[in-house]
Amino acid sequence: MPQLINTTPSAYGYPLLIKQLLHSALATAPDQEIVCGDRRHSYTEFYRRVQRLANALREMGLQPGNTVAVMDWDSHRYLECFFAVPMMGCVLQTVNVRLSPEQIAYTLNHAQADVLLVNSDFMPVLKQIRGELNTLTRCVLLTDDATPCPKGPGFAGEYEELLAQADAVYDFPDFDENARATTFYTTGTTGLPKGVYFSHRQLVLHTLGATAGLALAPQQGRLHRDDVYMPLTPMFHVHAWGLPYVATMAGLKQVYPGRYVPDTICKLIVREKVTFSHCVPTILQMVLGCEAAREADLSGWKMIIGGSAMTGSLAKAARERGIDVFTGYGMSETCPILTLAHVPTEELGGDQEAAIRVKTGRPLPLVAIRTVDEEMNDCPRDGKSTGEVVVRAPWLTQGYLHQAQASEELWRGGWLHTQDIGNIDERGYLQVTDRIKDVIKTGGEWVSSLQIEDIIARHPAVAETAVIGIADGKWGERPLALVVLKKDAAGVAEEDIRKHVLAAAEKGQISRYGVPDRVQFVAELARTSVGKLNKRVMREQYPKP
Amino acid sequence: MPQLINTTPSAYGYPLLIKQLLHSALATAPDQEIVCGDRRHSYTEFYRRVQRLANALREMGLQPGNTVAVMDWDSHRYLECFFAVPMMGCVLQTVNVRLSPEQIAYTLNHAQADVLLVNSDFMPVLKQIRGELNTLTRCVLLTDDATPCPKGPGFAGEYEELLAQADAVYDFPDFDENARATTFYTTGTTGLPKGVYFSHRQLVLHTLGATAGLALAPQQGRLHRDDVYMPLTPMFHVHAWGLPYVATMAGLKQVYPGRYVPDTICKLIVREKVTFSHCVPTILQMVLGCEAAREADLSGWKMIIGGSAMTGSLAKAARERGIDVFTGYGMSETCPILTLAHVPTEELGGDQEAAIRVKTGRPLPLVAIRTVDEEMNDCPRDGKSTGEVVVRAPWLTQGYLHQAQASEELWRGGWLHTQDIGNIDERGYLQVTDRIKDVIKTGGEWVSSLQIEDIIARHPAVAETAVIGIADGKWGERPLALVVLKKDAAGVAEEDIRKHVLAAAEKGQISRYGVPDRVQFVAELARTSVGKLNKRVMREQYPKP
Repeated sequence: MPQLINTTPSAYGYPLLIKQLLHSALATAPDQEIVCGDRRHSYTEFYRRVQRLANALREMGLQPGNTVAVMDWDSHRYLECFFAVPMMGCVLQTVNVRLSPEQIAYTLNHAQADVLLVNSDFMPVLKQIRGELNTLTRCVLLTDDATPCPKGPGFAGEYEELLAQADAVYDFPDFDENARATTFYTTGTTGLPKGVYFSHRQLVLHTLGATAGLALAPQQGRLHRDDVYMPLTPMFHVHAWGLPYVATMAGLKQVYPGRYVPDTICKLIVREKVTFSHCVPTILQMVLGCEAAREADLSGWKMIIGGSAMTGSLAKAARERGIDVFTGYGMSETCPILTLAHVPTEELGGDQEAAIRVKTGRPLPLVAIRTVDEEMNDCPRDGKSTGEVVVRAPWLTQGYLHQAQASEELWRGGWLHTQDIGNIDERGYLQVTDRIKDVIKTGGEWVSSLQIEDIIARHPAVAETAVIGIADGKWGERPLALVVLKKDAAGVAEEDIRKHVLAAAEKGQISRYGVPDRVQFVAELARTSVGKLNKRVMREQYPKP
Repeated sequence: MPQLINTTPSAYGYPLLIKQLLHSALATAPDQEIVCGDRRHSYTEFYRRVQRLANALREMGLQPGNTVAVMDWDSHRYLECFFAVPMMGCVLQTVNVRLSPEQIAYTLNHAQADVLLVNSDFMPVLKQIRGELNTLTRCVLLTDDATPCPKGPGFAGEYEELLAQADAVYDFPDFDENARATTFYTTGTTGLPKGVYFSHRQLVLHTLGATAGLALAPQQGRLHRDDVYMPLTPMFHVHAWGLPYVATMAGLKQVYPGRYVPDTICKLIVREKVTFSHCVPTILQMVLGCEAAREADLSGWKMIIGGSAMTGSLAKAARERGIDVFTGYGMSETCPILTLAHVPTEELGGDQEAAIRVKTGRPLPLVAIRTVDEEMNDCPRDGKSTGEVVVRAPWLTQGYLHQAQASEELWRGGWLHTQDIGNIDERGYLQVTDRIKDVIKTGGEWVSSLQIEDIIARHPAVAETAVIGIADGKWGERPLALVVLKKDAAGVAEEDIRKHVLAAAEKGQISRYGVPDRVQFVAELARTSVGKLNKRVMREQYPKP
């Protein structure tokens, strides 16, 4: 057997706890700024507020092992919760505020939330569900206006008032690095939301791995200490991709945008000189299309796109504004970052640059990625052969909360099953081509709905599109294209779209099996609470030929 | 108590093992080069050789828990040992080949080495000590010339022949991340060498922390994927500062220089376009002074200087050649890197740039550094108040091998005691001003011998200097300056040097207590096996006034 190291009794074993991310930041960047709206303060003040928050929560009776839930927009206060709550040994539940009130109540009960920090904007939701919440004992109001804190036993007070009353020194304890730090719920397209959870160790390792992956990039898309960071993926959604932890450890200036209002976001970018963000394609599209974006200089803004595949046309539009867009890949179950699609120096300015930016990406350090068939045999790494993407990394959820069977399915064979279909090329670039459930099986062949969507999206009259598989007696399934036309598109017929795809098939860009028999113009596409296309709903809406 | 995360039975727990550093490198940089002398091969071939080496060692009867010692120059083979030996569950002992034969025998016995891989250059040493080695069963010859492998039961064969016969597939197992991966011996200036040891977990975390610290630098001294790495700190010495692990994880081109021959090093830098190295000041001085350096373009070569303090004059000489020198700090006990003295962007080209480069540096992520008095109270972070530097990080040796008392002294109060004296400023820069044992206490004041040395080194006739404290009945101690003059220095008297220091004291650069009463010209200065000034020996040589 390998020999374990001997540890002298006085040695500090150094558990990987979230508090350890702060050592170098507080020592080297004490005056660095954290900005939220018109408020700004230093890292030194941030850490004082973290300690005050921990004291305020302790005075409310919270103890290690309890769960603190948060319903807020992206704020400096949320960042304080990212640190204070796990650092005192409690679990931070980041509540998805886009879920229905019933689903929110379900997740709060399921996670056994003890305390809820709630922005005044969500008070109507809270009122609606308060009676159903079985485990919640106290609430704290978060507000920037004069919203008065409700009286009565349920509310402990308003956040800023509680902090002002609390002591600014808290001795954060050491404990097992495998302690649960965070919990949140995936918004899967089937069934009830499922809880995922991450330990202190996992979050520290994700922070280190993501930092290494981002900072080692030679030129394009690299992160460094002069960057100014602003999240545009909500903080409730997989810790805003874990980047607030990265930014804090690195001592970066940070900007929190509150509720996402495209004009406000644009103004913040310009005013605070934001250089590094991340978002889903929909948000990028909203920002690019807003009033303030017309005037704003967005050049040099580095932007990781994830959550859904970025189309070539969106990437082009962003790059024409000087935005350095590239893809990142991950999911709620993976903490989330697995890959980044940095462009190698020798490809910059070359033919492949645009294509590389929209690839799914190359693995971060410590991430092992395979594409496998149903018996878990590896597919060749030839950039063509597709299989299910399965992964290992030190930061993957070790199961679904209180769901033994789903947990075992997720980890079948010791690898986390992403349910994505993809290929890997000789240089390690993963390309996700589809979701297992969204692949269309027609005539015995698998056709990628994403590929068909990408081709349709290039038609000048098309604003948005989704392709779903429709049951077919002869072929098994056939693709159906749902298309939202641009407002100014006139005289375009459904057959024109079909011919556009056919032309692409004739050039060999797609299998002929992929040409939809039917194209249907619709006013809008069904989406999930986090803005992803909801194909489950679409298949229910358009069940038959 | 905090809640520990639940792990579903099939989940992969992901121990932090050295093998995990290879996932992303092999996937993304399979064709990247590793160069040693005239040999070069890809990462794919490197990994095949790592597997062959593990099979060859297993066939020699090695099992997990055994110790494999290596005596070699910096080579591609050493890099293979860095991975294969710990990955199979064995301990890698990196033998300091500059120790005396007796000390080498002591360390091999103390570490209970089972197998020794030995470069033919060290065969004379091996012959001399072979009879004393109690635990060694087999040896493997490393050679690039036609040195024949000794016959007989002691030698298993020559490295390349053994690899050629071995299978290129080895299924490296999972085991406890706290397994010991490496051991080596500090060359302390007192007593027998002491063994330090590092686990897989510690080496993985050092790799991630050092990568983050190096790659996040905005401009000066940053590491990235286009860099070409070459160590110039021996691989036996604290894993060449752990940078071979960093370079491999990042998928960098790597160049191994073999035995350090300044002209060869210069030619390699030019031929292979080396951009990133690290060394002690002595090596940099040797390289700058060699024949080949006169012609070579060394500009853009990033160079971390550590092991001893870099003088301002050496930094200036290097920067005049376009070398991007800056300081790193650590020691055998700390794996080693604790701090790096990157220049912030706003200081580049400014008055303070030169001074920042020779500071001791700012802490890497996860590193906590304090300067404390004898009761472990913090000194103010004002850039002036000095105390002992004590540290915590997830990669510090958890003791000295089989030395319980020294281990407890090292970790007194739960912090690793560096025995260095220093101050920390408001921006987190540590400045080590002296070793505890090298500080001169005169008239109740502490005077830094390094500061006096730095002033003396500025005198145009001085090649090298060392200042030591000499017992003094009246003052406790008084500084004695030992000075090696430049070859072409003529007509310089000892009193001239004293007046030079006095002038600096009159300008307030140093306390008047620091002006040596005596200056003594010597032919050379005593050094340790790794090239550091050996003040213990000097104090023995010059014991009295």
